[in-house]
Amino acid sequence: MTRHAVDRLYERMDEKGTPLCIGLDPVMEELPRHLLQKVTEEYGSNFRAAAEAIRRFNFAIIDATHDLVPVFKPQSAFYEKYGHWGIEALEDTIKYAQGKGALVDLDAKRNDIGKTSGAYAEAHLGEVMLPDGTYARSLDDADFMTVNGYLGSDGIEPFTKVANRDGKGIFVLAKTSNDSSGELQDLFISDGEEIYMEMARLIEEWGSGNIGENGYSNVGAVVGATYSRETARLRNMFPSVLFLMPGYGTQGAKVETLVNGFDENGRGALVNSGSGITFAYSNKAFVGRHPDLASPERYVEAARQATLDSIVDINRALKDAGKLPESWAA
Amino acid sequence: MTRHAVDRLYERMDEKGTPLCIGLDPVMEELPRHLLQKVTEEYGSNFRAAAEAIRRFNFAIIDATHDLVPVFKPQSAFYEKYGHWGIEALEDTIKYAQGKGALVDLDAKRNDIGKTSGAYAEAHLGEVMLPDGTYARSLDDADFMTVNGYLGSDGIEPFTKVANRDGKGIFVLAKTSNDSSGELQDLFISDGEEIYMEMARLIEEWGSGNIGENGYSNVGAVVGATYSRETARLRNMFPSVLFLMPGYGTQGAKVETLVNGFDENGRGALVNSGSGITFAYSNKAFVGRHPDLASPERYVEAARQATLDSIVDINRALKDAGKLPESWAA
Repeated sequence: MTRHAVDRLYERMDEKGTPLCIGLDPVMEELPRHLLQKVTEEYGSNFRAAAEAIRRFNFAIIDATHDLVPVFKPQSAFYEKYGHWGIEALEDTIKYAQGKGALVDLDAKRNDIGKTSGAYAEAHLGEVMLPDGTYARSLDDADFMTVNGYLGSDGIEPFTKVANRDGKGIFVLAKTSNDSSGELQDLFISDGEEIYMEMARLIEEWGSGNIGENGYSNVGAVVGATYSRETARLRNMFPSVLFLMPGYGTQGAKVETLVNGFDENGRGALVNSGSGITFAYSNKAFVGRHPDLASPERYVEAARQATLDSIVDINRALKDAGKLPESWAA
Repeated sequence: MTRHAVDRLYERMDEKGTPLCIGLDPVMEELPRHLLQKVTEEYGSNFRAAAEAIRRFNFAIIDATHDLVPVFKPQSAFYEKYGHWGIEALEDTIKYAQGKGALVDLDAKRNDIGKTSGAYAEAHLGEVMLPDGTYARSLDDADFMTVNGYLGSDGIEPFTKVANRDGKGIFVLAKTSNDSSGELQDLFISDGEEIYMEMARLIEEWGSGNIGENGYSNVGAVVGATYSRETARLRNMFPSVLFLMPGYGTQGAKVETLVNGFDENGRGALVNSGSGITFAYSNKAFVGRHPDLASPERYVEAARQATLDSIVDINRALKDAGKLPESWAA
């Protein structure tokens, strides 16, 4: 478990030939109706049924795609909605994906200070103390997690401490993919640059003590693939910082923009697609290309097809930019 | 449930005569040893035992102090550590405190965008959809929750939408209490002020549509009681923004600093004390004053005494500053 997290990630990326990560965001309102009916019949109208729907949906998606992608990224909010039932489904999802050989990035955007940040790190990346003083691996023991750096170093160091010890990594929010990300993140610092650049500088520093064989540290940055110019600047300025790039797919990020997040060797970025894959069967652009898969009953096949399409799309763009790693298929 | 959250808070503050909030941060490593032994005997060495220790500890603290304070603030990290078992203990804690008439602020510092922020809001302040299309109150249905505003408006609006509908409130991080909070938060914006002031301006705006009878909005700010000058500036600049002030007690904030967070009528701030109360039995300053309570077996009495001491301490300082509300005892 002490191998560098990004080295572990790269092995899997090379094995699959893609930097694609599938976001597991099981929005109850959007799950296939037949699945919701089934769990209601079996468990009734309650939180347990909701958790079971999430579990079945995720397992089916993982079964259909784990041979294609290196990483899955569950979004904590959609599990927290169903309280401890939902969290148990999250724990099971993480274990199931890891059991299939994939890595897991828990998208939880946690943040706090000192002992509290330490507790978050133990909760999601490490081990926790039981009442008799022994330690056990946490129940949702992810490989990476996303965090928010607004509180500064003493909010982040407890995460890097656990990550460094256990071969894990974190992604800190820098420039997020949403429309209003600029309200704060794009403000200029006096005699300096934008806040997101300042945050990236801190991120680089936080990771400087733990660089993998691949040249990247285990403290990455979340950089929205929706912002082309910003992505290129960040890539150029911070060569040791791995990017997790949300926004590809349904948030409208173009694949040409995405390519700016990669270095000249086609390294340095992990590209997330969530509902564009998991809910492909109801995605207009996707069903336009694959009208036969426009049915909730075929959500699993649709997800696999959308994964294949995304891989081709991204790798073609990398090739056009002269960045495709040799071992990956165009 | 549609009464304004801050009006509900003020009713309880006036009933108890204090702005004190007790932080429920059940750090397993610091729980009284006899309690840990008991749950280990009953349940063995496992996560269930850990959750049961947390539950018993919290219930005992709430039993001993709920007649004295208006609000309890559980810190999510210490529950998340124990996975779905810990989350169930959190749910039970929230319900138990509310059942005793207290309000609950869930300190979770969540943040995301759009639909995902919406899911967090539903998870912790609202109602969630079950698989059959009906809705149920969430399992940890708090009155307030803390959030992080780094992602801007489309990260916050989903929270205010749920909060406005259900008579709830949020606290957004502005100037946090930790030593390194200034690394980002104190940087100056070009032609402007510090980032934390910019954040406070956004907070004021986010809450401007929902001001209670008391003149404060349901979008408050987290302002570390450790920063005296910053607290005074923020209080002066943002008269409609309620402050949640951590740092009193073990983080070393002086009560004179704290007073800067209150308006001239002794309103506008909620003061949190966590381990200074719950772990008073092992707190040097406290046991110096109350040597008879320096024992893990007496943690409940120590917590009650520390609560009483804190209330006197805060109200005396408010009185000295000419800010003590008439109905509160000095």
